[in-house]
Amino acid sequence: MELLGSGKGGDKIYDLYLRLEQDVLVKDPDVVIIFIGVNDVWHKRSSGTGTDYNKFEAFYNAIIQKLNAANIKVVLCTPAVIGEKTDFSNELDGDMNKYASLIRSIALKNNLPLVDLRKSFLDYNLEHNPENKEAGILTTDKVHLNDNGNKLVADEMWKHIRNLKLTGN
Amino acid sequence: MELLGSGKGGDKIYDLYLRLEQDVLVKDPDVVIIFIGVNDVWHKRSSGTGTDYNKFEAFYNAIIQKLNAANIKVVLCTPAVIGEKTDFSNELDGDMNKYASLIRSIALKNNLPLVDLRKSFLDYNLEHNPENKEAGILTTDKVHLNDNGNKLVADEMWKHIRNLKLTGN
Amino acid sequence: MELLGSGKGGDKIYDLYLRLEQDVLVKDPDVVIIFIGVNDVWHKRSSGTGTDYNKFEAFYNAIIQKLNAANIKVVLCTPAVIGEKTDFSNELDGDMNKYASLIRSIALKNNLPLVDLRKSFLDYNLEHNPENKEAGILTTDKVHLNDNGNKLVADEMWKHIRNLKLTGN
Amino acid sequence: MELLGSGKGGDKIYDLYLRLEQDVLVKDPDVVIIFIGVNDVWHKRSSGTGTDYNKFEAFYNAIIQKLNAANIKVVLCTPAVIGEKTDFSNELDGDMNKYASLIRSIALKNNLPLVDLRKSFLDYNLEHNPENKEAGILTTDKVHLNDNGNKLVADEMWKHIRNLKLTGN
Repeated sequence: MELLGSGKGGDKIYDLYLRLEQDVLVKDPDVVIIFIGVNDVWHKRSSGTGTDYNKFEAFYNAIIQKLNAANIKVVLCTPAVIGEKTDFSNELDGDMNKYASLIRSIALKNNLPLVDLRKSFLDYNLEHNPENKEAGILTTDKVHLNDNGNKLVADEMWKHIRNLKLTGN
Repeated sequence: MELLGSGKGGDKIYDLYLRLEQDVLVKDPDVVIIFIGVNDVWHKRSSGTGTDYNKFEAFYNAIIQKLNAANIKVVLCTPAVIGEKTDFSNELDGDMNKYASLIRSIALKNNLPLVDLRKSFLDYNLEHNPENKEAGILTTDKVHLNDNGNKLVADEMWKHIRNLKLTGN
Repeated sequence: MELLGSGKGGDKIYDLYLRLEQDVLVKDPDVVIIFIGVNDVWHKRSSGTGTDYNKFEAFYNAIIQKLNAANIKVVLCTPAVIGEKTDFSNELDGDMNKYASLIRSIALKNNLPLVDLRKSFLDYNLEHNPENKEAGILTTDKVHLNDNGNKLVADEMWKHIRNLKLTGN
Repeated sequence: MELLGSGKGGDKIYDLYLRLEQDVLVKDPDVVIIFIGVNDVWHKRSSGTGTDYNKFEAFYNAIIQKLNAANIKVVLCTPAVIGEKTDFSNELDGDMNKYASLIRSIALKNNLPLVDLRKSFLDYNLEHNPENKEAGILTTDKVHLNDNGNKLVADEMWKHIRNLKLTGN
């Protein structure tokens, strides 16, 4: 098994759609893990260029459809965090939860495996962030992951990839 | 006892400060109830003209100071809701919680009575909004109160005003 | 010759890209006129969901490339107006000019005909809007076109479509 | 004559109002120069916390009124630039022009001297910025002034302060 990264800083859902053929489909993957959403929410605040909820859903579904058409297994992820406080008082928690809920419902509707990173990050912080800090547990700066954050993502993804292999070929 | 309204649609914290003398102090009140914050959060999204967190705090404290200087009893309120869903997936829940927490800490620091409407609204919705709807329980449109919402605000405020009178003159 | 509309309210550049095959290419057109950009600018202010300048350029070029690959003649338009004042004091004039300049340079680089509606609307308003009003000359509400606005767009587009036919088949 | 600075980075119009007594009136000045507006426009885009046009006007007038009541001469300035391009294609030029126009009309209505820095900066750039660059002529980064920018501001202000003195005591 080989793992290939195609992620790009600053990407929003429609950027994935634009790059899908040239950056992903050309590699003829067996499985594609979609991990997107932080910038779609964050950029609403930081630059006025986030993604409308209904457009996010439309592009997300369009990506799944293209991957299905190419017989590629798809794994979805919820976006993890913009701020690590555990009492839902991070500025963008409401919108993050809204987009995470959407991805959960897309996974359910399409019967696709879901790596619920938003839930995993919250559970981890509930245990390891008793002071309710906004950064420093799994991220360096509220958004970008530190070593622990990267390890948590890898562990959670592996659980699902491994299962896929067992039920696959 | 006489109740006088001085609220104005669209106001943010600094608008209260600007109108304080001409609209409130001139009436020589015994008690002033401050109920503000929804627009400070909401306008960030709707028109790019919300209020910075640190500026919100500075003006809030400046208002309390002016009321203290005039020997007026002050009662604080947390902003209630922008969306009535109970799982913190209303788009602006994170920022609402952040500003509500600030007001709670200002009340604590200044030993002022607090009408925690955000908590009251959430408690009410946890009981009466089992379908997790975003409007229609206490608001008509996620923000503006219906009759039940107005009654809940009145009831919660009255609890504190009554107490004030008992310990007052 | 037959004229077919495929425009949709609320669309931004990436929405055109998403709908290109199912709504445009299936009709096997000889010519496609691209008229987009107002929402990409406007939504930055109204909902925090406008389009980044560099992403706007990337999707615009991707659309042209797909139309070129299908041997379809392409005509570009600059976005017309968000506000009709003629002294560049409409709130979003700067960003509108920035995106219009980009489209002009894309037309030049690709040697494509350009319907410069932003220039046409300004010229018209310089003549017919001596009171520097923000709406009512070519729009009803600063953005949506009235009959005069629609006629101006049709006239300007026709000049270029007619020329295309003369030099075409 | 003594010159005293009371400006503070990040301030918007209402911050001036909040600080007026403690930072300006206590110094018992003969003349006050008001130079504000960039953040009121800029923060709409950068953080969703700019200032509504009508609120900007209300606070601006309230400041003038307080200074008048203290018999202080008032000099107004238009905000200079967010980007130095001369063809009104800087992203925020429209809103900058809108707020500058408002200040010009306030000066006219109150018969107050106006240092029209926005006009001075544009005139300077029309002469010295033939390549239509967005920074580097009078600013380091589109907003913050370099030595030439500071000198231009000082020169323009001096013209008006000198005149005030001649007609004053």
